[in-house]
Amino acid sequence: LKVFSLNSNPKLAEEIADHIGTTLGKCTVSRFSDGEIQINIEESIRGSEVYVVQSTSAPVNQHIMELLIMIDALKRASAKSINIVMPYYGYARQDRKARSREPIAAKLVADLIETAGANRVITLDLHAPQIQGFFNIPIDHLQGVPILSSYFEAKNLEDLIVVSPDHGGVTRARKMADRLKSPIGIIDKRRPRPNVAEIMNIIGNIEGKTAILIDDIIDTAGTITLAANALIENGAKEVYACCTHPVLSGPAIERINNSQIKELVISNSIPLPEEKYSGKITALSVAPLIGEAI
Amino acid sequence: LKVFSLNSNPKLAEEIADHIGTTLGKCTVSRFSDGEIQINIEESIRGSEVYVVQSTSAPVNQHIMELLIMIDALKRASAKSINIVMPYYGYARQDRKARSREPIAAKLVADLIETAGANRVITLDLHAPQIQGFFNIPIDHLQGVPILSSYFEAKNLEDLIVVSPDHGGVTRARKMADRLKSPIGIIDKRRPRPNVAEIMNIIGNIEGKTAILIDDIIDTAGTITLAANALIENGAKEVYACCTHPVLSGPAIERINNSQIKELVISNSIPLPEEKYSGKITALSVAPLIGEAI
Ligand SMILES: Nc1ncnc2c1ncn2[C@@H]1O[C@H](COP(=O)(O)O)[C@@H](O)[C@H]1O
Ligand SMILES: Nc1ncnc2c1ncn2[C@@H]1O[C@H](COP(=O)(O)O)[C@@H](O)[C@H]1O
Repeated sequence: LKVFSLNSNPKLAEEIADHIGTTLGKCTVSRFSDGEIQINIEESIRGSEVYVVQSTSAPVNQHIMELLIMIDALKRASAKSINIVMPYYGYARQDRKARSREPIAAKLVADLIETAGANRVITLDLHAPQIQGFFNIPIDHLQGVPILSSYFEAKNLEDLIVVSPDHGGVTRARKMADRLKSPIGIIDKRRPRPNVAEIMNIIGNIEGKTAILIDDIIDTAGTITLAANALIENGAKEVYACCTHPVLSGPAIERINNSQIKELVISNSIPLPEEKYSGKITALSVAPLIGEAI
Repeated sequence: LKVFSLNSNPKLAEEIADHIGTTLGKCTVSRFSDGEIQINIEESIRGSEVYVVQSTSAPVNQHIMELLIMIDALKRASAKSINIVMPYYGYARQDRKARSREPIAAKLVADLIETAGANRVITLDLHAPQIQGFFNIPIDHLQGVPILSSYFEAKNLEDLIVVSPDHGGVTRARKMADRLKSPIGIIDKRRPRPNVAEIMNIIGNIEGKTAILIDDIIDTAGTITLAANALIENGAKEVYACCTHPVLSGPAIERINNSQIKELVISNSIPLPEEKYSGKITALSVAPLIGEAI
């Protein structure tokens, strides 16, 4: 069994290798002068079960191509099996045709990974669980809720309510609430007419409670920070937020720092680069979870 | 018949559309905040023969993913056929396993394009013509030599010799020499021992002649500028250089400007961005050639 890391998440890859009692395989993933990816696998992998750790986070196209070229190299070097550990699945939000002539990039990515030659995929909190069906190879779909819940459990917070920032996330909120033995709430946004500001209606009694907002992905952090502020305005005592995948693009960090969010708890499915460091953020490792799945 | 352009080479795409008497189809290829590609095709293409113009030049991984996502969108929007015009084929130099455990990225790219759903590929001067065999769909392989040769023919240069900068390019040099009715020469580089400077031996009589160096790709321009300087040192009167694919990465422009090359003639298979402009460079359009092939 050999574990290789590509460029998206080397620290997590090391933790995973550590967890299963091995060290990372030797390989260099660099770029030629014109930007083309160059991969050198520096130890024999003939007949080995190989695990490749790569989140397809930003720069997403770069990280996808690294992954595909690595799979190609491993296949041609006669790996026994090629297992992809992809904690964050890029393009997962393009998972259906919402309008005419839209691509379904999440399905394309699944096809590309299979075409390159992967034998199995391990991933975490897919934006839509239906993406599992985009693959014809085995896919292990891990859940971040237990890790996030345990963190809050250990804090012994009282009078909790778990809140979903939109309709799509209610099932996830329900799962966390079950673990924390708390009720759930929902932020019920709607736009009365086009080009009129959205109304934030809060379903559930939050008066004087400690609210935990949960989402799968926090990208520009618009949704989550507006939700947190609405909760405080409507009488919540304090607001925590958590998510599995901290995409945190564009104005995200600024918005979080300026919001009513007391603490944001994330996983390390996507590494938090130094320029995104904020005193409000706590990152939990998914290495043990992934290690168990290997 | 509809022609769409992605982001690599919009000007060439327009020229191609012009040549075949149409205008470019409406579509926007932009990026979400996190860098994921967003494609909107803004006119119906149901039942149409669609041509997509995209060189997979730098940023290569971005351009490959744009192409694949566009093919996916066109397929799902019921295009009658999806024809890829890919004047420059990125990753073409990773076309074989030269060492153990190397990928064959050029074959991977072919598989990705087919998997996404393309029906035909039109390309120009592949680094190795064998790459045609990497596809199971029809591939039209166009040649840049006639265009480059015609340019030099029109100059009425006397006492010509066409020179290949390495052994791999002799067939190409022969084709140009046939058109210009000139002899050929070869730069015969060899390294006597590892870590010892290469010796440049020139095969062919260049004394007092006007030499034209020809290559398929000029990337960092190391090979071609050393060759040009060696030709002048060994008695050539003047040196022109030409290539189909002006990758021109890293120190290329500086090297060309500081070299003995009098003029560099390129095609527009890869656009020359403003920061790479050099008084020495002349770009010829391959739009008519591609237009004929459509
Ligand atoms: N990378 C992205 N960043 C922002 N929005 C996206 C991205 N990818 C897809 N979308 C959009 O997000 C929506 C899907 O999100 P959801 O409704 O939460 O599943 C669709 O309207 C997509 O057009
Ligand atoms: N993008 C690239 N830039 C520089 N060298 C490359 C690139 N892609 C492949 N190569 C190397 O170029 C060699 C192939 O070039 P050639 O011998 O001219 O076919 C191989 O040794 C490759 O490792």
